[in-house]
Amino acid sequence: MKKDIFYGKGMSHVKKDYPDIYSAVVELNKAAYTGKELKYRTQKLIAVGITAASSDDRAMKKQMRSAMREFDITADEIVDVLRVVLLTSGMPPFTKAMRILYELLE
Amino acid sequence: MKKDIFYGKGMSHVKKDYPDIYSAVVELNKAAYTGKELKYRTQKLIAVGITAASSDDRAMKKQMRSAMREFDITADEIVDVLRVVLLTSGMPPFTKAMRILYELLE
Amino acid sequence: MKKDIFYGKGMSHVKKDYPDIYSAVVELNKAAYTGKELKYRTQKLIAVGITAASSDDRAMKKQMRSAMREFDITADEIVDVLRVVLLTSGMPPFTKAMRILYELLE
Amino acid sequence: MKKDIFYGKGMSHVKKDYPDIYSAVVELNKAAYTGKELKYRTQKLIAVGITAASSDDRAMKKQMRSAMREFDITADEIVDVLRVVLLTSGMPPFTKAMRILYELLE
Amino acid sequence: MKKDIFYGKGMSHVKKDYPDIYSAVVELNKAAYTGKELKYRTQKLIAVGITAASSDDRAMKKQMRSAMREFDITADEIVDVLRVVLLTSGMPPFTKAMRILYELLE
Amino acid sequence: MKKDIFYGKGMSHVKKDYPDIYSAVVELNKAAYTGKELKYRTQKLIAVGITAASSDDRAMKKQMRSAMREFDITADEIVDVLRVVLLTSGMPPFTKAMRILYELLE
Repeated sequence: MKKDIFYGKGMSHVKKDYPDIYSAVVELNKAAYTGKELKYRTQKLIAVGITAASSDDRAMKKQMRSAMREFDITADEIVDVLRVVLLTSGMPPFTKAMRILYELLE
Repeated sequence: MKKDIFYGKGMSHVKKDYPDIYSAVVELNKAAYTGKELKYRTQKLIAVGITAASSDDRAMKKQMRSAMREFDITADEIVDVLRVVLLTSGMPPFTKAMRILYELLE
Repeated sequence: MKKDIFYGKGMSHVKKDYPDIYSAVVELNKAAYTGKELKYRTQKLIAVGITAASSDDRAMKKQMRSAMREFDITADEIVDVLRVVLLTSGMPPFTKAMRILYELLE
Repeated sequence: MKKDIFYGKGMSHVKKDYPDIYSAVVELNKAAYTGKELKYRTQKLIAVGITAASSDDRAMKKQMRSAMREFDITADEIVDVLRVVLLTSGMPPFTKAMRILYELLE
Repeated sequence: MKKDIFYGKGMSHVKKDYPDIYSAVVELNKAAYTGKELKYRTQKLIAVGITAASSDDRAMKKQMRSAMREFDITADEIVDVLRVVLLTSGMPPFTKAMRILYELLE
Repeated sequence: MKKDIFYGKGMSHVKKDYPDIYSAVVELNKAAYTGKELKYRTQKLIAVGITAASSDDRAMKKQMRSAMREFDITADEIVDVLRVVLLTSGMPPFTKAMRILYELLE
């Protein structure tokens, strides 16, 4: 269930053609998102922050979309994440993430 | 108050010698950590995640230490953040962060 | 005045919906581009270098365009910046930046 | 000969307009791909790994395409490189590289 | 067996305190280094290239040391990897990696 | 002449053991720092900015030291560069660079 969320097109090929990689990714994903203390939802916010900070358009968009769809994370919550991105990573990733967020909202 | 947490030695020089930069950083820090929805504590976890993902030893250490001291964030909570770092950023930042965490715990 | 240059679409939303962030960014921008010794123009060249080195298409393009429009920075000057990018950051960001520069020139 | 492989559109402009940079890049490229022990083909696999790890779409695509065309590097070999990318750099560059690989294969 | 190579101090704590993460990492490591076409040794060279390119001192050192110890990878082979790092990632990671290599050789 | 400035210990080994790489680096360095319009001194400031933004302690320190020694670049000028780093790359590289600058000044 959790595993279905993170994956895009690339991974459906992996599942079929490289099942050993796929299965390792499923395990990794499960270990990553089964926190002892933090909720999955909070971990998702952290994933949004990390991908936004790394300025990767596609990963950022995928994380934000899944955050909003699967976890009902609000725009204000994402902006609260992006505030930290602005502080730790500067203007270019912040403005890029803001633009992507508003595109998703439209 | 919030502003005292994030800053290290470098910033005390900035405060004295470059007050205009210092004051902009204070404003930035305030805007960053005054979320509309997320608590400061949650934003701190996000800052831990971003600095760990970027593999910057010193920033990572400073964020983890302040997370544990100022917010009583537990080791398990930090590990829950690092689970996301492992997934999104790979083994080298994860093992580095784990080593730093255990050094701080000792 | 200076503040109008750096900002793209994302920031107009920020101005309206998150005025506290906007105002912190304006302060940050002012402190950033009000050097004690270096001219704004020279700082702009540095911003072109940093965004080119980080291989971020959009930020690179925005910086180059504003450099050429607002400061009459020439193509040769930008190439002089990109020479340093080649040395410090390798071929991929250099060729990407060169391609973007020539697209802007056409 | 080797020099023709790595270069895209940006470099044809450089050749004409900035011959001193072009000639330095040719020298650099020759030194880079004239290993003492490793074959050019193996070095190419390393270049695929590095550009994939850095999450740069365009460089990644160019390297993969040239790897497959000039060196008859197979999809399975590239996936073997991407396995290392998954381990060292996490899911986002891995899934991005997988998607690009399958686009090239189609 | 393969799993023992990549891990440093951080991971022994993980094994004891977070067995679910440890077990996911073991799976990941196995999938990463069990290529269909490339030998483990070649994949190791790729791991050296990626960690050197990312300028991470500690990861670079660990990878180089394990490359030389476990796989009898020679200094000349590592330099052949670093040639590609110079081309793709510029002087700072190249000179850093060279310095670390010579420290390991002494 | 220019070539002697950028190089550290790593490169003296390269000169002796890998003369082909050394000679390519000399050419690269010459092409990089022989701008058509910008002075070498300005290009040096750009190199300080790029290495500071990439958060690489050692490269940053080497660039700052050579900037101050070889070009009489002042602390205020370096801070003017770091203002741009703060804006484009966030607090962690800025505070790190500030700390290194003050260590060099002492």
